Amino acid sequence: MENFMFYAPTKIFFGKGSIKNLPAEILKHSDNVLFVYGGGSIKKTGLYEKITNLFKENGISCKELPGVEPNPKIESVREGVRLCREHKLGGVVAAGGGSTVDCAKVIAAAVSYDGDPWDIILDGSKVKSCLPVFDVITLAATGTEMNGNAVISNMSVNDKKALHDDRVKPVCSVLDPEYTFTVSKFQTASGTADIMSHIFEVYFSRAEGTLVQDGISEALLKICIECGKKAVDNPEDYEARANLLWASSLAINGLTGCGKPEPWSCHSMEHQLSAYYDITHGAGLAVLTPAWMKFLIRRNNISKLVSYGVNVLGIDAALPDVQIAEEAAGRTAEFFCSIGIPATLSELGVGTEHIEDMARKSFEEGMENAYEPMSETDIIEIYKSCM
Amino acid sequence: MENFMFYAPTKIFFGKGSIKNLPAEILKHSDNVLFVYGGGSIKKTGLYEKITNLFKENGISCKELPGVEPNPKIESVREGVRLCREHKLGGVVAAGGGSTVDCAKVIAAAVSYDGDPWDIILDGSKVKSCLPVFDVITLAATGTEMNGNAVISNMSVNDKKALHDDRVKPVCSVLDPEYTFTVSKFQTASGTADIMSHIFEVYFSRAEGTLVQDGISEALLKICIECGKKAVDNPEDYEARANLLWASSLAINGLTGCGKPEPWSCHSMEHQLSAYYDITHGAGLAVLTPAWMKFLIRRNNISKLVSYGVNVLGIDAALPDVQIAEEAAGRTAEFFCSIGIPATLSELGVGTEHIEDMARKSFEEGMENAYEPMSETDIIEIYKSCM
Repeated sequence: MENFMFYAPTKIFFGKGSIKNLPAEILKHSDNVLFVYGGGSIKKTGLYEKITNLFKENGISCKELPGVEPNPKIESVREGVRLCREHKLGGVVAAGGGSTVDCAKVIAAAVSYDGDPWDIILDGSKVKSCLPVFDVITLAATGTEMNGNAVISNMSVNDKKALHDDRVKPVCSVLDPEYTFTVSKFQTASGTADIMSHIFEVYFSRAEGTLVQDGISEALLKICIECGKKAVDNPEDYEARANLLWASSLAINGLTGCGKPEPWSCHSMEHQLSAYYDITHGAGLAVLTPAWMKFLIRRNNISKLVSYGVNVLGIDAALPDVQIAEEAAGRTAEFFCSIGIPATLSELGVGTEHIEDMARKSFEEGMENAYEPMSETDIIEIYKSCM
Repeated sequence: MENFMFYAPTKIFFGKGSIKNLPAEILKHSDNVLFVYGGGSIKKTGLYEKITNLFKENGISCKELPGVEPNPKIESVREGVRLCREHKLGGVVAAGGGSTVDCAKVIAAAVSYDGDPWDIILDGSKVKSCLPVFDVITLAATGTEMNGNAVISNMSVNDKKALHDDRVKPVCSVLDPEYTFTVSKFQTASGTADIMSHIFEVYFSRAEGTLVQDGISEALLKICIECGKKAVDNPEDYEARANLLWASSLAINGLTGCGKPEPWSCHSMEHQLSAYYDITHGAGLAVLTPAWMKFLIRRNNISKLVSYGVNVLGIDAALPDVQIAEEAAGRTAEFFCSIGIPATLSELGVGTEHIEDMARKSFEEGMENAYEPMSETDIIEIYKSCM
């Protein structure tokens, strides 16, 4: 097992009604915060009213930053930073999916930086200090509620990049499975694919002896497959929503990936798709992942694929390894289709016109050091196989 | 899934040589600390010298509390508190097994309390504030390096009780598998039994829908069985020691037990054994656990035992449930024998003279609400079946 540092300090309040614990946690830090949310779905569900009432009852004043987009844009960050400075706010509270939380994190990190917030995305060492971040998550997907990652898009340069900083790890996250009941079937399926991809990206690693990380990864993958389907079929299945939500946080809080340093393959390829076509991140991953697995098979790099096939999918271990690997890739594609995700990038609205540019940008994220090293040509080949 | 709060803020530095990260973490809080250790094994292994050198090189001064016992005694806590007050120390650094860390935690919590430290064990609400705790763990067993529990014995009243407080969770723990190479075969086996018991105590729960907790539990149990045996057979097997060590921390940092509120059955029975006979905690658990599993079978409460048998031990799911349950209990006993733990309490030096008293004390820890409720008579019966 490789050396690692593990640090997941976020306090989690999990379960229905657990939002009642939020005000006391915020008040340990500030009574004057920025409230960040998205396109208004929290107003429809009543969550907006619940939070603002809790703020009033507990003497917390807030300024609002509404309208944060899926694949959150740098413009929203700039506006949030402006509000924090103008009103001397002491914390950032996000309610919504991963996008609102990511936006909140970068705002929190950019307030004390004098230049443009996009600078700290390009160079994380420019972050000086961070406001405390709190969140109420309404989507099981990115796992941002328990880590220090934040992905921001800058459409003016067709770029989607991540900030990684321990200091933006939320102080406290509220995970109430009931808030995910209204998530659409497509977003539920895409979220499931995103969670699974976070696990795949670290499960497929050259690191050896990682029994703990791999055992937890396999357990969570099985849960995603079981509960992802159940949640799509029956959106108000509390147990399915609860397990999916808790799995989403643990999939990417460091637990599955500790001591596994390689850069991520499918995320690197997908980030380019979202940056050029603004597609749903998880759906892009669901199409790319089985294609990437087939690339592993072409490269004869199948040992982990075989473990996944046997331990997660229950494929007979007595079959020849290549057959297990092919069946594992095939069943993964079938699973994503079964929960309603299109099988091709074309169906998601992706064209072929930017493939070379996207492959170059993906390659530049370090794909020569990926689990199975990829050249620009390899990436182009994978993109094309998804059309 | 039941509601829960999860909070595991300890920063973990894992792997060989990772102790180099310790001084910087301590210095964020204090440059004048109490250094707590046990009977001198850290002097034999060179760890004492390494730590005191790191202190000197980094300008950290310390007072020492050596000689902390297995099943740490309240007298050591009192002495540590005296030292902290006399020298105005700003943190507590423990190096050794769970006992030294538990002792350090209670010292850290008792310094600001005016009365006798045993009071805060009997009534945790008396804890006012805690000094920061740091540790270098040298035994995969209690998992104290990542939680807020500390067990202390008061032999004058034959009592062994636990403090639970979020504020004594270590700020930082160093987990270097090489420091566990010198752990004896018997202590390695007992540590493995302790880890497994921490998982069993929460795996066997009436809580429903806990797929994440149960999946992680099953993964960690499999690792304990595989790596516990390997570490006993080959004490310098780095990968086995590493996985056992990381499993020990995750087994009881809240991850496996969140949303599972029942009091613990085997630990309750074992704490009485250690309090009366000062036996090795994990060895006591290894004898009690299979006997308790057989008690479950007598009560026809076998559903979780069947899951454990199939998912962890790989027993054929097609067999009748009772047969799976009996085989699961039997194989658990066999496993503990195979790593060198005696099969009976008598062999561990336990007599029958205190059984009634021990059963009463165990019952008073809430056994009417245990996973399978136990009366004093049930507990006496389980103790006797272990003789």
